[in-house]
Amino acid sequence: MSKIEPKTLKGFRDFLPEKQIPRQKMIDSIRASYERFGFEPLETPVLEYAETLVGKYGDEGDKLMYRFKDNGDRDVAMRYDLTIPLARVVAQNGEIKKPWKRYQISPVWRAENTQKGRYREFYQCDADIVGSSSPLADAEVLALAAATLKALGIRDFVIRINSREVINAFYDSLGLTEGEKISAIRAIDKIDKVGKDGVAEELTKNGIIYDTVQKLLAFAEVSIDAVKGQDELVKIGEELNVKEPLARLLSIVEVAYKLEPEARFVIDLSIARGLDYYTGIIFETTLQAAPQYGSVLSGGRYDGLVGMFSSKGVPAVGASIGLDRLYSALEELGLIKEERSTAKALIVNFDAALESDYLRLASELRASGVNTALYFETADLKKQLSYASEKGIRYAIIYGSNEAKEGKVIVKDLEKGEQEKVSVGDIAKYF
Amino acid sequence: MSKIEPKTLKGFRDFLPEKQIPRQKMIDSIRASYERFGFEPLETPVLEYAETLVGKYGDEGDKLMYRFKDNGDRDVAMRYDLTIPLARVVAQNGEIKKPWKRYQISPVWRAENTQKGRYREFYQCDADIVGSSSPLADAEVLALAAATLKALGIRDFVIRINSREVINAFYDSLGLTEGEKISAIRAIDKIDKVGKDGVAEELTKNGIIYDTVQKLLAFAEVSIDAVKGQDELVKIGEELNVKEPLARLLSIVEVAYKLEPEARFVIDLSIARGLDYYTGIIFETTLQAAPQYGSVLSGGRYDGLVGMFSSKGVPAVGASIGLDRLYSALEELGLIKEERSTAKALIVNFDAALESDYLRLASELRASGVNTALYFETADLKKQLSYASEKGIRYAIIYGSNEAKEGKVIVKDLEKGEQEKVSVGDIAKYF
Repeated sequence: MSKIEPKTLKGFRDFLPEKQIPRQKMIDSIRASYERFGFEPLETPVLEYAETLVGKYGDEGDKLMYRFKDNGDRDVAMRYDLTIPLARVVAQNGEIKKPWKRYQISPVWRAENTQKGRYREFYQCDADIVGSSSPLADAEVLALAAATLKALGIRDFVIRINSREVINAFYDSLGLTEGEKISAIRAIDKIDKVGKDGVAEELTKNGIIYDTVQKLLAFAEVSIDAVKGQDELVKIGEELNVKEPLARLLSIVEVAYKLEPEARFVIDLSIARGLDYYTGIIFETTLQAAPQYGSVLSGGRYDGLVGMFSSKGVPAVGASIGLDRLYSALEELGLIKEERSTAKALIVNFDAALESDYLRLASELRASGVNTALYFETADLKKQLSYASEKGIRYAIIYGSNEAKEGKVIVKDLEKGEQEKVSVGDIAKYF
Repeated sequence: MSKIEPKTLKGFRDFLPEKQIPRQKMIDSIRASYERFGFEPLETPVLEYAETLVGKYGDEGDKLMYRFKDNGDRDVAMRYDLTIPLARVVAQNGEIKKPWKRYQISPVWRAENTQKGRYREFYQCDADIVGSSSPLADAEVLALAAATLKALGIRDFVIRINSREVINAFYDSLGLTEGEKISAIRAIDKIDKVGKDGVAEELTKNGIIYDTVQKLLAFAEVSIDAVKGQDELVKIGEELNVKEPLARLLSIVEVAYKLEPEARFVIDLSIARGLDYYTGIIFETTLQAAPQYGSVLSGGRYDGLVGMFSSKGVPAVGASIGLDRLYSALEELGLIKEERSTAKALIVNFDAALESDYLRLASELRASGVNTALYFETADLKKQLSYASEKGIRYAIIYGSNEAKEGKVIVKDLEKGEQEKVSVGDIAKYF
């Protein structure tokens, strides 16, 4: 066999332990939060019939999709998001009792331009409530978003909330046509990236008159704390002819605050969400210390989508975390705790005559729940301590003929550079 | 958009919560065992360059591989197992300190014939030690296998062990050619499926003479407990001219027993493992109560494979659990605990005036670590209790105006059909 240069595809990554250990902890934490709210896990296949996915993500989506003919000449495609598979599952399994709160944490694939710092394989963490149009369900999703970020140790996040109903009422008051509404939403969705001027330019290009452009921009400037600014928001609602839908939005946020009193929810009328399918609340989440990462957690209500494969409509509301983006942001903020090894202790193996004791020590520590590695070759102490240090194993357990006579082991803390003698019988207790 | 029939591809499955909850628990348990032994997590991409995978799994493998041209006309293939990607990672990351104990629990894809009850997307749980040729490493993998099954609540497993060195020494003593050795290994590998007669037939067809066939079959009949049968095994070693390699194998198993005293390790000379790449110990694991599922955990030493992309050899030994097969076996044995919901409690919502209290109850329970769902519509009690029952949520928390006056809630255990009044302040403690 000729040697092949070992390499990964552009946009695809290996996660070596030093990345994968904290990444897995993040996933565990997100999963625990989702389950704390009673969301149930779903797993769907990586491959779907292409017809299930094609046409659901716009022209851009079809272009970026990994789609091919399988060995049986079936037209198949790799999972592009977790929402369309959810819609398929709901249609296919009519027996699922609703409201159904499901979560899925899985990779998806998109042949993105990697020059923009995007990956072609990345994880989404979705939680959705299917089959309820109650405002309580919207509030539950907002509370879940806040609780999940809090559980990850993030303090400075702001959940910025708007509603398609508010947007539509305002657009109606301006007399926009349906086509103008869609292009206005798409233009304003880019405000964080291209700024007000960029949005104004795009709106003007789409044939919207100067006066209306100014009103749209003023609308998008509203960003007010949902609690402290309640009176102001009520006033704004009247001024902008969005009194009723805004009041409904505020009452949703009020409920969310009761569920998560420490969260920060802001009514931000610049939030547009580019996708067409939203019908009610929409939200994005920025980290104040790392706004350059954009939204790390977004979602909203989309009452038309989940029913697309069914004979009847299925209301739904949900949130999605972009795991890789959030990981990068937390890494930059120093919120990822470095952890290079799963093992807490290494049994040093330097006297072949004591091998049985080393095995017994490993066995006992493991039985007591201590993650324990064992050095496989009889080698000198220094080499093994440097192995432990390099691997990031914090404690070395040293046991030679002297220790054997005393019935003790030396536990060396390689992080602190301290060591301590512990009775063999007490070693599990030490950890 | 015209309605599309919602369906999954043949050999691909959705895991709805009632399956995914226990399945995820299994994965968590396996992961915890692997980490208990100090194995570190690795994640590799689903897609690899085709040249990395093609030709590594025989003609059969190339035929079953999901291989296609991506949008950039790259020849790519979906992950077929977890071992070749490991070999690539090792070659690509020379800085990884060895011995390296890595695990990976991930799906792989093979376009298998689904009529044989096989899936095209299934999970492997691999743990390998890379960069050590010490017998201690072999013993560690055997102990890991036993500890992992024990942690899953399985008691009646038998780890059946052989060694390619023992097999080779015996085949040499019979004077088999290299070609005959390979076909003998492949024939004997099928003994559990086709029986002795089937193996004899295949061996004869491959031109092996009657007398040798009889000796090969007698060899494959040796299946002796590695502890209780030690004396007998030593005798057999001499008779079969495999004294030294068998002694080496026995000493590995002796070490494994010291690490996992409750395990059952059997020297079983019928174990052959069809794959060519094994070089040392080989093992398979059967559940005595469900032998029809074949081996649920297999592995061995393969010193040539991991170095295939490197300039030098890298010894390796590992074990792999076929998650789906093990799940099916445990399901049949009644060892999968049914669990349909992640939520432990449902806050019943039947008096709109008390909504704030319901929200506070949910918030408090969640903050105390109790997985809690909230009914989203104000509805009658009966409907909500039947929702909880159908979902598999065990406790309903009932709070109406009478309870509000008393400062108590009713906790109804839907499994036992009992209920109890608990002070509002003590509700978290109750769980």
